[in-house]
Amino acid sequence: MERNIRVRELDSRPMEQREIELVERKGIGHPDTLCDGVAESVMRALSQEYLDRFGSVLHHNTDEAQLVAGRSNPEFGGGEVIEPIYILIVGRATKEFQGEYVPTDSLALKAAREYIRDSLHNVDMETDVVVDVKIGEGSTDLKDVFELDDGEAPNANDTSFGVGYAPFSDTERTVYEIERGIYDDLRERNPAVGEDVKVMGKREGDTLDLTVAVASVSEHVDDVDGYVSLMDDVEEYVYGVAEEHTDCDVDVYLNTADDREEGSLYLTETGTSAEMGDDGSVGRGNRANGLITPGREMSLEAASGKNPFNHIGKIYNILAHDLAEDVAAEIEEVDEVGIKLLSQIGSPIDQPQVAAVNLHAEDGITSDIEYEAESIVDDGLEDVTSVTERIIRGDVSTF
Amino acid sequence: MERNIRVRELDSRPMEQREIELVERKGIGHPDTLCDGVAESVMRALSQEYLDRFGSVLHHNTDEAQLVAGRSNPEFGGGEVIEPIYILIVGRATKEFQGEYVPTDSLALKAAREYIRDSLHNVDMETDVVVDVKIGEGSTDLKDVFELDDGEAPNANDTSFGVGYAPFSDTERTVYEIERGIYDDLRERNPAVGEDVKVMGKREGDTLDLTVAVASVSEHVDDVDGYVSLMDDVEEYVYGVAEEHTDCDVDVYLNTADDREEGSLYLTETGTSAEMGDDGSVGRGNRANGLITPGREMSLEAASGKNPFNHIGKIYNILAHDLAEDVAAEIEEVDEVGIKLLSQIGSPIDQPQVAAVNLHAEDGITSDIEYEAESIVDDGLEDVTSVTERIIRGDVSTF
Amino acid sequence: MERNIRVRELDSRPMEQREIELVERKGIGHPDTLCDGVAESVMRALSQEYLDRFGSVLHHNTDEAQLVAGRSNPEFGGGEVIEPIYILIVGRATKEFQGEYVPTDSLALKAAREYIRDSLHNVDMETDVVVDVKIGEGSTDLKDVFELDDGEAPNANDTSFGVGYAPFSDTERTVYEIERGIYDDLRERNPAVGEDVKVMGKREGDTLDLTVAVASVSEHVDDVDGYVSLMDDVEEYVYGVAEEHTDCDVDVYLNTADDREEGSLYLTETGTSAEMGDDGSVGRGNRANGLITPGREMSLEAASGKNPFNHIGKIYNILAHDLAEDVAAEIEEVDEVGIKLLSQIGSPIDQPQVAAVNLHAEDGITSDIEYEAESIVDDGLEDVTSVTERIIRGDVSTF
Amino acid sequence: MERNIRVRELDSRPMEQREIELVERKGIGHPDTLCDGVAESVMRALSQEYLDRFGSVLHHNTDEAQLVAGRSNPEFGGGEVIEPIYILIVGRATKEFQGEYVPTDSLALKAAREYIRDSLHNVDMETDVVVDVKIGEGSTDLKDVFELDDGEAPNANDTSFGVGYAPFSDTERTVYEIERGIYDDLRERNPAVGEDVKVMGKREGDTLDLTVAVASVSEHVDDVDGYVSLMDDVEEYVYGVAEEHTDCDVDVYLNTADDREEGSLYLTETGTSAEMGDDGSVGRGNRANGLITPGREMSLEAASGKNPFNHIGKIYNILAHDLAEDVAAEIEEVDEVGIKLLSQIGSPIDQPQVAAVNLHAEDGITSDIEYEAESIVDDGLEDVTSVTERIIRGDVSTF
Repeated sequence: MERNIRVRELDSRPMEQREIELVERKGIGHPDTLCDGVAESVMRALSQEYLDRFGSVLHHNTDEAQLVAGRSNPEFGGGEVIEPIYILIVGRATKEFQGEYVPTDSLALKAAREYIRDSLHNVDMETDVVVDVKIGEGSTDLKDVFELDDGEAPNANDTSFGVGYAPFSDTERTVYEIERGIYDDLRERNPAVGEDVKVMGKREGDTLDLTVAVASVSEHVDDVDGYVSLMDDVEEYVYGVAEEHTDCDVDVYLNTADDREEGSLYLTETGTSAEMGDDGSVGRGNRANGLITPGREMSLEAASGKNPFNHIGKIYNILAHDLAEDVAAEIEEVDEVGIKLLSQIGSPIDQPQVAAVNLHAEDGITSDIEYEAESIVDDGLEDVTSVTERIIRGDVSTF
Repeated sequence: MERNIRVRELDSRPMEQREIELVERKGIGHPDTLCDGVAESVMRALSQEYLDRFGSVLHHNTDEAQLVAGRSNPEFGGGEVIEPIYILIVGRATKEFQGEYVPTDSLALKAAREYIRDSLHNVDMETDVVVDVKIGEGSTDLKDVFELDDGEAPNANDTSFGVGYAPFSDTERTVYEIERGIYDDLRERNPAVGEDVKVMGKREGDTLDLTVAVASVSEHVDDVDGYVSLMDDVEEYVYGVAEEHTDCDVDVYLNTADDREEGSLYLTETGTSAEMGDDGSVGRGNRANGLITPGREMSLEAASGKNPFNHIGKIYNILAHDLAEDVAAEIEEVDEVGIKLLSQIGSPIDQPQVAAVNLHAEDGITSDIEYEAESIVDDGLEDVTSVTERIIRGDVSTF
Repeated sequence: MERNIRVRELDSRPMEQREIELVERKGIGHPDTLCDGVAESVMRALSQEYLDRFGSVLHHNTDEAQLVAGRSNPEFGGGEVIEPIYILIVGRATKEFQGEYVPTDSLALKAAREYIRDSLHNVDMETDVVVDVKIGEGSTDLKDVFELDDGEAPNANDTSFGVGYAPFSDTERTVYEIERGIYDDLRERNPAVGEDVKVMGKREGDTLDLTVAVASVSEHVDDVDGYVSLMDDVEEYVYGVAEEHTDCDVDVYLNTADDREEGSLYLTETGTSAEMGDDGSVGRGNRANGLITPGREMSLEAASGKNPFNHIGKIYNILAHDLAEDVAAEIEEVDEVGIKLLSQIGSPIDQPQVAAVNLHAEDGITSDIEYEAESIVDDGLEDVTSVTERIIRGDVSTF
Repeated sequence: MERNIRVRELDSRPMEQREIELVERKGIGHPDTLCDGVAESVMRALSQEYLDRFGSVLHHNTDEAQLVAGRSNPEFGGGEVIEPIYILIVGRATKEFQGEYVPTDSLALKAAREYIRDSLHNVDMETDVVVDVKIGEGSTDLKDVFELDDGEAPNANDTSFGVGYAPFSDTERTVYEIERGIYDDLRERNPAVGEDVKVMGKREGDTLDLTVAVASVSEHVDDVDGYVSLMDDVEEYVYGVAEEHTDCDVDVYLNTADDREEGSLYLTETGTSAEMGDDGSVGRGNRANGLITPGREMSLEAASGKNPFNHIGKIYNILAHDLAEDVAAEIEEVDEVGIKLLSQIGSPIDQPQVAAVNLHAEDGITSDIEYEAESIVDDGLEDVTSVTERIIRGDVSTF
């Protein structure tokens, strides 16, 4: 069956040409992102377990982790967590299938604890975090069973949609890479750098203001001087990353809530503000491409934790993003492309109601461009089940 | 101090001129919206209590309610809720001030229970819902105390932003009014109509597809025929509302997940799917204007439950929406306007970093238009504290 | 089959002849007793529901309610509950039988809320108490189904025992009646009297010291004078009850933890100390006869909340108490009697391993006495299922 | 001040002379005992922390742990835990003192997790158990601060009592040693032996029936034959221990709920029935001497988790037991002794209202015996604070 793919001109001015641009990224250690990560790791654990047991993925959605902040008393050289962070895993899963029980709650508990332990260097799972589980019984109809191998696209679970775009603007790239660099690079080299990082970029014309918050880890900060020196390093690092990705004039505002005179600093025990007052939940932070971009088309879907085989809000957001990247990469003339995929409940997910491809090319959309874009999207939809596989393998990030 | 207000041309094609438009509204009884409502009612109760006791609003944010779905066994003529819905109120509040305890948890409990009882006609608070509370101690610095009367704008709690636009497109208006009509009008006349309503509008050119889900209340539905007849009424009602608000060709798809042959219908005990498998949380549904509009600029901020006096993500989203409505209403030439307000942490909230006003006028932006728009926005910012008052009085909806 | 009933002389000196006697009763509003009451009311609700649906009682045990104290700020004339009391209903129940779901959790929630509301005049269920439920799925084998009508005794669920004795000593009677009087009589006449009452009696020879704690309800106490006057009334009342039931010299010590100089008084909002720091759980208070009597044989079984048809720890404790009362009442010569019933797991509960009847008669145990005692116990065991009926009807108290 | 110590003849026939005797012990892995252990380990952690920080023990009581059973699917060779066991730590503690925060909740979490891990060889803390904390703020008045060194006895927190006796009867010794042997000896040699052991002894005249339940660990049991062989070993072991401690004719009934024909065996994953339906809470199992002895004087006090410096229900139960052991050991003529200690709220705990010493000596109580018994009890009360030290060091078991 032919797919309803429509290639049109962008509805908006390309991002680089707009005067004001706002972009945000909440880092891995931000309470909302932690919840996304927990939800997604629980989903992966369950999917894999279903595959191992039954050769197919059964119905589940674990997209509602709730984090209740703890209380801490950070001090230079090391203070303490007073009340543990509380994380409640919420969702639905198939707990019994073909007469066999699946230990969904135990698996979820383990996956969540592992995820938190792996993501935060300075958290002590014996004292700092309580993980609790409320996963309801979901039912798996025979028609819901998804077998990876048979290559047939499952039916959409809802009438919903996904959106994506490409490429990142310079501002977006800058914001994204700053957090990634701090987490993957700077933090590995400097144990005083925490995982709770928040980057907000505001570009006005050629000026980019970067408001950055980075938690420090008190055990590795001896005193105010140590803190100041640490933040100098972070600032320098941020300027360095920015320089690589943007030609704008950059101003960095780091930990603006600090009041160094009063000794009010962003000091934590665990590297995350979840320890002292910041609650979190799934789907309130980064979109599937890792950013919050109010000037772009965005879905409000919380992709993290949703099942990877027929949940449209998850699959189409990931796929739209991937297809946009492919279009932008493979068609030289395309400066910017946005893709919207709209499902029809009950129809195979490789047959969206509409795949709307909006793009901008300097010299207009030629029939070649149109044909190429259509082909890329068509192939991508044909191969939609590979998204499922990649999600389960953990090759796709949803935050 | 002069405010940084910038009036420019829209970055996007006006919505009515775009070929594809997607709009969604989750009704009052949707699990996510229930959480928004609980969070906001708890916030109002606390704000009012602080005012009554101290003449000022103290620090709090109760924006993280988590709903864990129950389990039910709906039957024609009335079945039963088997496992209650569980709602956890999460947040921070000032529990002690000037030596006086504030019963924040008890107030929150009461406000949440009242809200659920008022919002859902068919819920029995003695059997169907458990409301639990985990509100942490937040601290109120003297500088954080907000006195309504003194007219001075408080300082922003964060570097964040709000966005708004006006007017609603026909599609948006249609989607919005359908849910409002079903809840406020149809439901009052027909007790079989539940509160969990979801409306998704997809306009392609001049064709508007409305995918509508409406829960029925089993006690008032005798059998399949009763259900079919009820849904016929709902469908007729939806067509009626649509006709008032759009000139598109309208197709309504009602409860598409039903399988009438197999007796799989959207039957509930309480009027909400929260009773049987749909979890919910704050900030995952409607934006402050009541809609989810991926084609518009959107903030991901969960406005509901945030404190009403210095939480930028709440105040600026509401204000941007209001100002956009004022500009669209008062300046005849303006077809569409989008407003972005960006705060500076620590600066008074009536002095945003930038207020970006993007608008479209058939014949271009004249200096008169520019001046008028600036004035409206300037006045609105000057009067920002009135937003706080209106939030506390419950005159502003955040969902 | 003949029953193994053994009548022997008491192993202990009759209580009235001992020099030291300690007796305690925790009143209805004491946190532990509240939990007993919640557990028992949940059990009754479930039993009745099973009977109504299936004509038989299915497997369940709801004997583990846990109460976590709230926090309050009592003030003369009325203060407030700051943090609600949290009650977690814990247990096992049959949630599905013969293809039908039983709304065990919703029923439990309702029964518990009703019980608390009925037991405490001054509690506001909208603000002062959170009731939560964690009832696990228990399985009902066919052999476990208990039909009231068929008259056949079910098999014991365990090798366990029950103990009882009669009559109450004067001290026991006094302690018991003081609490009963304060709750049923004085409290009805004086709204300032709370439900949390604790009575400890210590008799040394002919001197009975009564240490009594009685919560006052702040709304109905205007000031210190009001409190003093209230406590004078309570004290007078206690002396009055004591006079009726004992010939000892009585000394009453009322609210000994008060420090009137420092204004430290036993003032509460709700009538129970559960509002401000006293946690509670099932089975830590009164035995099935309503008392704690370290000098008597006691079972540690938490009778409250256990299923009423084959749970030995419940049924045998109640039955042993009843049979002892019958023996003491019907056989004139018997001054005191203690009964122990020991079950054999898997054997019918009307066939205990042994029914040990130890009694004291002024002139020794004649064969007539022995025969009469045996007959009473034999008849009681024959009719054991009537205990089940009485439990379900609420005619038997377990605390 | 002279102490009110009264030495009298026993009120009961010495236990060895009674015809029927019932004794029970719930092993370390029984859900109730697990809760006792958690409560006590949390208490020790807090006491030690207070000592380390302030040189004195501050007010706390953590005596209300609640265990909600999990769900498991045990299979020969290893099955799985499906739903984790949930343990809620409940209590009060001083969270702030002299301006310093004490991380009570984090400490409690750690202590509880360590205790469970140490007590159960086969539990996986990452998947099998959720530990949660609800510890309320308790206040420490200056008068409540207990300094170990100053040697002064603190005041009693309540009018309450403790009871103890010595020596163990042969039946008691047998029951006690069977569980101790299985846990400390047999389990170390045979990994298939679980920690959830329950021993009930019923002596009628010279016949001792031992009803023993011992969980097996499925990973180390290959099949029914393996199970049968394991239970043969356990049975032999039990007979062996019994032989050492009693001259009665012994009959052992092992795992009487098993139905080997139907394959219904006492198979577990973790070694405890808490994994599959048996809830637990503090104070429902063994008394401070490690036994449940309905024929003895017993206190219902839940000693575990209570603060070790002024909680009478804890200290007097432990002390009464110790003093009884001393009297029985040091005064050759004494066959049996029972001790009751009754406090006076607000009075120093080394000055009980009465210390009642009831004992039996073959040839009556001589003045020498009386004098010696008084001296032992007097010295013990003088040295009451050493009980506190021993509790904190973990040298005293309360279960």
